[in-house]
Amino acid sequence: MTTRLGATPDEVATAARRVMARCDELAHVTSTPGRIERVYLSPEHARVNRLAAEWMREAGMTTRQDAAGNQVGRLGPPEAPALVIGSHLDTVPDAGRYDGIAGVLMGLEVVRLLRAPGADGGWVSPLPFALEVIAFSDEEGTRFGKALLGSSAVAGQWDDAWWTLTDAEGTTVREAFLDFGLDPGRIGEAARRPSELVAYLEAHIEQGPELDRRGESLAVVSSIASARRFQLVVEGEARHAGGTPYDMRRDALLGASESALAVERLCRAEHHIIGTVGQLEAFPGAVNIVPGEARFSLDLRGEFDGARDRVWDAISRELDDIMGRRHLRWTAREVHSAPAVFCAPLLQDVLREGILSTVATPSLTAGAPAASGREDPATLFSPAGHDGMAIGSITDVGMLFLRNPDGISHHPDEAVSEGDVGLGIRALAEAVLHRAAEPA
Amino acid sequence: MTTRLGATPDEVATAARRVMARCDELAHVTSTPGRIERVYLSPEHARVNRLAAEWMREAGMTTRQDAAGNQVGRLGPPEAPALVIGSHLDTVPDAGRYDGIAGVLMGLEVVRLLRAPGADGGWVSPLPFALEVIAFSDEEGTRFGKALLGSSAVAGQWDDAWWTLTDAEGTTVREAFLDFGLDPGRIGEAARRPSELVAYLEAHIEQGPELDRRGESLAVVSSIASARRFQLVVEGEARHAGGTPYDMRRDALLGASESALAVERLCRAEHHIIGTVGQLEAFPGAVNIVPGEARFSLDLRGEFDGARDRVWDAISRELDDIMGRRHLRWTAREVHSAPAVFCAPLLQDVLREGILSTVATPSLTAGAPAASGREDPATLFSPAGHDGMAIGSITDVGMLFLRNPDGISHHPDEAVSEGDVGLGIRALAEAVLHRAAEPA
Repeated sequence: MTTRLGATPDEVATAARRVMARCDELAHVTSTPGRIERVYLSPEHARVNRLAAEWMREAGMTTRQDAAGNQVGRLGPPEAPALVIGSHLDTVPDAGRYDGIAGVLMGLEVVRLLRAPGADGGWVSPLPFALEVIAFSDEEGTRFGKALLGSSAVAGQWDDAWWTLTDAEGTTVREAFLDFGLDPGRIGEAARRPSELVAYLEAHIEQGPELDRRGESLAVVSSIASARRFQLVVEGEARHAGGTPYDMRRDALLGASESALAVERLCRAEHHIIGTVGQLEAFPGAVNIVPGEARFSLDLRGEFDGARDRVWDAISRELDDIMGRRHLRWTAREVHSAPAVFCAPLLQDVLREGILSTVATPSLTAGAPAASGREDPATLFSPAGHDGMAIGSITDVGMLFLRNPDGISHHPDEAVSEGDVGLGIRALAEAVLHRAAEPA
Repeated sequence: MTTRLGATPDEVATAARRVMARCDELAHVTSTPGRIERVYLSPEHARVNRLAAEWMREAGMTTRQDAAGNQVGRLGPPEAPALVIGSHLDTVPDAGRYDGIAGVLMGLEVVRLLRAPGADGGWVSPLPFALEVIAFSDEEGTRFGKALLGSSAVAGQWDDAWWTLTDAEGTTVREAFLDFGLDPGRIGEAARRPSELVAYLEAHIEQGPELDRRGESLAVVSSIASARRFQLVVEGEARHAGGTPYDMRRDALLGASESALAVERLCRAEHHIIGTVGQLEAFPGAVNIVPGEARFSLDLRGEFDGARDRVWDAISRELDDIMGRRHLRWTAREVHSAPAVFCAPLLQDVLREGILSTVATPSLTAGAPAASGREDPATLFSPAGHDGMAIGSITDVGMLFLRNPDGISHHPDEAVSEGDVGLGIRALAEAVLHRAAEPA
C-alpha cells in the first residue's frame, strides 16, 4: 500500500524557496562578520535554536531544547514512537550555508507537506508514528575538537571525559554548558530510547562531486564511511642547515613529506579509501635549521572498516621503511575511530521509492533540472561523517544526498540548487509515506 | 722572515683554559634561564659587552662600544692600520656556548700572547700594525630576522630600510637602538675605512663534521658559502577531506612535500650544494580539509655562486613540473642573497703556516690530541655564514676552523675541546706573525 504525497508542484516549489531563503537567513548568524562560523554552545547557537524553534512551531510542532542544546520539534500523539528527520545547524570555520542546515530545514518542509491541510497543530491521519525534526547542536566538532557531541547525547553515548575538553580559549565543555544555561548533571535526559524511535532520516548535500558528474539530483546513501584519525610525530635531529652534510642529516620534515606522499599513493591504489594529511608542521621551524621534529595529521576514511584498517597497516609498514632509511623515529596517536554505519536496507528502499517518485514528475519544480530517467537512482557511500553515525546506535538510519555543483563543501562556495532541494523535499516526504506503509 | 711565537706551551694552555672558562661564564648571560639566548640590543647584549670590555682592558687594550653596539678593543699606535680579529657574541635561541664567542675570546688571548712581556698597555715591537679585537653585536639575526647587522655597520653597509625591521614584540630596530642608548643618527660612525685595516681574521668552530671525520684539529677556510633564501607559497584548493576524490584534489601540501624531496634530491646530486626546507606549514591546517595552501622556506648554499644558481634553476624547473602535474600554482620570494666570499690567498697561507706550526709542536697543550702530521692542513669551505661576509667588502678576510665533535652547532650540545682551542690560539697568533712578515 502506497500513499502518494498530495502536495502540488507549487507547494513543493514554495517549500524549496523557503528552505533557500532560510539558509540565507541563518548564514547571517555568525561569530565572524563576512564569514559563516557558528559553533557549539555559542551565542550564535542560541540564536539559531530560537529561529528553528519559531519555524518548528510555525510547522505545527511543539518544540523544546534538549539537555545537550539540540533543538527538537515534534508533531503527533505524545505516546507514539517517532520518525526523526534531522541534521545539524553548527558549522566549520568559513563554512558554506547548506551543510547540515539544508537538511534541518527540509525536514520542517516535509512536516508541513505531510500535515493535514488546515490542521491546527493536529495530525495527519495515515501516519502510524509521530514526526520529529531535530536540529543537532554539534556535528562538526569545530569548538572542542570532538565531533557529534549533540547527536551522541541523543544516542545516550555521552562520555564524561568530554566535560574537560577545552576550546581555543581554554573554556571546558562543562563551563560552556553552564554559560549556555544548560545543566551538565542532566545530560542523560537528552538520551532517547530505541523504543521511542521508528527511524532516522537525513537529507544532506553531497560533500563530493559524484551526483554532479552523473548529472543526477538525488542519491540514496548506502553507508557512512568508517574513519580513523591519527596525530603523527616524526623525530630526527635539529642541526645547522649550513654545516650538516646530507649523510649526517636526520631531517624529520623530509620523513613527514615522504609519508604524506605515501599516504596518497597507497590510498589511491585502493577502491573507496581516502587518506588526507591536512596538518603538517616542522620544528623548530627556522629557515636555517634542519627540522628535528615534524608533526602531521592523518584522516583515513573507507567504505568498510576492514579495508580501512588494511590500508592503515600498509601505511604503517611504509612509515617504518621511510623512517628506518632516514634514521628517524615515528609515533602515531589515534584520536578518533568510528566504524562504518550501514544505512538500513528498508530505509534505502523507501528513499529509492521517494527519488523515483520525483522522476515520475519531472516538471515538479519550475526550472529544476529533471532527475534522470534511470531505473535505479544513484546509491553512494558517504566518505564524510554525519549525525547518523551516532544515531545509528539507537535506530535505523536512512540518508538522502542532494547534488552539490562541483562537489565543494566546508567552503563558502558550497552550493545546492533550489530545484534539487524541491526534488529532495518531495523524495523525503514520499519516503516517509512509503515507510508508513511498511510494517512497524 | 718568520718570527716564531715566544709563548710557552704552559702559557698557551692557560690561555685555552681561560677561553673555555669565559665561554662558560658568558653562557650564563641569557634571556632564558636554562638555555642560552642573547640577542641584539638586549640587556644581555649590554652585559656581555661590559664583560668583553673588561677583558679587553685586562689584555692591555683600549676599548669602546661603536655606534652599532659592537665592542671594539685596540692595542697599538693610534694612527697605525689594524689587523682585526673578531667574531660575534650574540646567539640563536637555545644556542651552544662556542659559536662566535670562542672566536672573540681566542682573539683576546692572541693579543695577550703577542703583547710584549711586561708591557703595560704598550705594544709589541715586531708588528707593523695595530691589533684590534671586535666582538660583533649581531651576526645571527635572531631578533630582527636580518643577519650580520653588527658587521654590516662596520663594513659601512648599513641599509636605512633596516630601521623599520621589527622583532617578535613589534619593536623596531630604531626603537631598540634608542632603548639600548645608541643614537641611530650616528650609525655611520661605526663604519671603518679600508685604509684603516690590514686584514680580518676569525677563528670559529666548524659548524659541521668534516674536521672530526678527518681526525684533525684545525682547518683553513677557503671561502664562505654563497647563499640564497626563498619563501615559497603553493596554492591549490581547500576542500572537504571526505568528499573530494583524488582526481579532483589540488592538494597544496602534497605539492610542497614533493618539492621538499626534490630539493634534497637535486642538491645531493651536486658537489658542495646544500638545500634545506626548515619551515613548512599547511593551510587552513584542519585535520579534515585538503590543504589549499602550503608555505615553506628554502635555504640554498653553495661554494660558488654559479653552481648555487644553476641548482636553483633546476629546482624551479622541477617545481614547475610538480605543480603542473598537480594543478597547483607556486611563487617564490627571494628574501636573502649573498655571494660567496673568498678568503684572501695570503691570509689562507699565513693561517696554513700557523696550523703547521702547531703540528711541529705536538706536545704543545697538555692532553690535546696532536694535529695530524699531514703536510697540508685541511682546507674547507664554510657553508655557514660569518661576519667575514660583511667585512670582506672592506678588507681581506681569513678564517680558521676548529674541530667540532660530531659537528653539531646552533644547539646546546655544540662543543670544542680545550686542546683544540689551545692549538687554534697558537695557530692564529703564528698567523698574525706570518702576516706581519709579509709586505703590507
